[in-house]
Amino acid sequence: MDKTGHNTSGDAGQLRFAQSSAGLTSSEIRDLMSLATAPGIISFAGGMPGNELFPLDEMDRIYNRLTEKEKQTALQYGPTNGLPSLRESLSYYLESKELPVHENRLLITSGSLQAIHILARAFIDPGDRVLVESPSFIGALSAFRACQAELQAVPLGGDGMDLSALEQELTGGASLPKFLYVAPNFHNPAGIVYSMEVKRQMIALLQGRNIPVIEDDVYSDIWFHEEDLPGMKNLKAMNPAGIDICFTGSFSKILGPGLRLGWMLVPEPIYRKCELIKQSIDACSPSLSQVIADKFIRSGEMNSYTARIREEYKKRGEAMIAALEEHLPGYVTFERPRGGFYTWLQLPKGTDSTLILKKAIEKGVVFVTGKTFDPAGERNDHMRVSFCNTDVETIRRGIPLIAQAIREVIGK
Amino acid sequence: MDKTGHNTSGDAGQLRFAQSSAGLTSSEIRDLMSLATAPGIISFAGGMPGNELFPLDEMDRIYNRLTEKEKQTALQYGPTNGLPSLRESLSYYLESKELPVHENRLLITSGSLQAIHILARAFIDPGDRVLVESPSFIGALSAFRACQAELQAVPLGGDGMDLSALEQELTGGASLPKFLYVAPNFHNPAGIVYSMEVKRQMIALLQGRNIPVIEDDVYSDIWFHEEDLPGMKNLKAMNPAGIDICFTGSFSKILGPGLRLGWMLVPEPIYRKCELIKQSIDACSPSLSQVIADKFIRSGEMNSYTARIREEYKKRGEAMIAALEEHLPGYVTFERPRGGFYTWLQLPKGTDSTLILKKAIEKGVVFVTGKTFDPAGERNDHMRVSFCNTDVETIRRGIPLIAQAIREVIGK
Repeated sequence: MDKTGHNTSGDAGQLRFAQSSAGLTSSEIRDLMSLATAPGIISFAGGMPGNELFPLDEMDRIYNRLTEKEKQTALQYGPTNGLPSLRESLSYYLESKELPVHENRLLITSGSLQAIHILARAFIDPGDRVLVESPSFIGALSAFRACQAELQAVPLGGDGMDLSALEQELTGGASLPKFLYVAPNFHNPAGIVYSMEVKRQMIALLQGRNIPVIEDDVYSDIWFHEEDLPGMKNLKAMNPAGIDICFTGSFSKILGPGLRLGWMLVPEPIYRKCELIKQSIDACSPSLSQVIADKFIRSGEMNSYTARIREEYKKRGEAMIAALEEHLPGYVTFERPRGGFYTWLQLPKGTDSTLILKKAIEKGVVFVTGKTFDPAGERNDHMRVSFCNTDVETIRRGIPLIAQAIREVIGK
Repeated sequence: MDKTGHNTSGDAGQLRFAQSSAGLTSSEIRDLMSLATAPGIISFAGGMPGNELFPLDEMDRIYNRLTEKEKQTALQYGPTNGLPSLRESLSYYLESKELPVHENRLLITSGSLQAIHILARAFIDPGDRVLVESPSFIGALSAFRACQAELQAVPLGGDGMDLSALEQELTGGASLPKFLYVAPNFHNPAGIVYSMEVKRQMIALLQGRNIPVIEDDVYSDIWFHEEDLPGMKNLKAMNPAGIDICFTGSFSKILGPGLRLGWMLVPEPIYRKCELIKQSIDACSPSLSQVIADKFIRSGEMNSYTARIREEYKKRGEAMIAALEEHLPGYVTFERPRGGFYTWLQLPKGTDSTLILKKAIEKGVVFVTGKTFDPAGERNDHMRVSFCNTDVETIRRGIPLIAQAIREVIGK
């Protein structure tokens, strides 16, 4: 929950997803929810930035420098594909990440979830096969399910997708999958980064098969170690011949999710389909948000702001790793995150993390169960513990409670 | 187009809809578009408020009084159904219109088009019949078509829907329609208000048939004559037993469409379905917009602002009527608008208004062809001329050009 005690989509929403996938009755869910959103509870459940990290001073400066004309633009309808000025400044930003902006088209969306939703509607007919990672981002799974896709899971390891499982899905299925959905940088929930080698082999496997890739990249500015940057090169930036890569991103982690602003960078024919779909969904994304995001990029404040929050998230991530190392029983393993918002704990095989969540809530702490991120909604022997929305001191208080809950369910 | 020369969704977007439905080739469309968005052209095509009418001073006052906590809320995710504070203040506003807020649930959406889009997805399976007015709002038609609905048109007269045609559709079809979509107040494009008598008879026809109604009500604050208010009572406010009325509205005409904020007020079971659909579309509507809209209602500024713009739109509407009466040939008829944004001109039967549009563009003036609003996309002997985004002086200059274009195509 956020500091105002609201149930927010990024947190109670995800918790509700978590609970509803955990086979609880609705009255059990209500009880858990009222506990989980009670004041004083420590939340490792959310995927939202910390409220105290938002660039309020920067937003004030931007707002107070807007001209009358810019404020009119902010209150008026804009083009379906986004305000021209934002498309221009965002292009510079994406070019600085070596993305091939000019060979593609940019569509501004209402959050990157909308970009994924629109792509799902552009590609999926009911019953179509779609390849996703296991585990995977719940918002994308839910968008694909809403289009009645059949989800085919490809397991993730510490350096990316299991390539032999991918090859099997590509060659073994009755019908060609409609696309592959991946999040190679600071994966939600797995916390990992794909290695360059896995990316290269994945591309080699996909080439010549006419299967588009949706590359979801919302955390890549939240890196902790500059030396990791070369290895984080986007699939889209690798620009492989013969694969349509649909790149999606967001201002949610680098400005604020309350703006509801994301984008897709896609080849022209896919763009045309997506623009029409967006037109029938919400006509255009919020102009007010777009004007502010545009000024944020142009002012140079975005770069100094992301540098600042990287420092803070790194502190939190490191405090999380230290606390987990100190308190977790030895039978729980996890990848040390090098960026992003999440750690993904692997429990002994067959553990039901919902039982741990119940214990944890009694102790005043919440996280999200593994099942939530399983494309089949079954496997529950993982848990996602996020460090984005809790400060270092709270992490140090909360993680021992998580560890206690685990020990009470599984043993010493 | 807006003053900055952008192609906006509300204008060039509608024009593009208009053109693409008019059987032109894409290069003809490009030529028309480049003419229609050229500087200096007079636009009677748009459905957006005038830029010069936005409440910029009010927005400045609101922004500069926001607390740190409110700004954090503005940048953070909110609940899928909307910020609690906005749901509360909007409830007061809707109660002041006698809407049964407490027997229903309120869902904040990203514009009322999103509300209609979500309802369409909640109700429609491919091939389902859906009843719509003829003419009807292009955005709704496009949302229903995207769900592969079969559109059944019920003609509109000067005081509302043709009731015997409605009865025929209700009793004669092979399958029950999934819903009826209507816009009884200041209809877009027809400009009319349903009479109380037509509304009562419509309700009587619908009762006991289990066919929900989507009541689209985005223009009802733009009335020109206070004495009309009692007759404008919403179907939802009439609260008829046994009919699920899904009421949709928007901040677009009473604050600014750039916020992308609308709502639906619907019975609980429909609400639950719609909230889940919204969760997979964009998680939540923009918090920044919601914080500002909430403060706008609570400050009392909304009421004084709508009073102010009503005066201006009334001047424009009256100038439009006077100019049309002075310049139009006698064979063109139209209803005098008593509010809203539009006049709807009826040309001699069989006229192709696209020919008139071509002439008009040569003269530096644009409107939207009738075909655009025809559920079948065929009938083209009407034209929509809006007065929302042109000042009185421009209306006086532009309407004679429209009249000339009509005469050049049809004759003296």
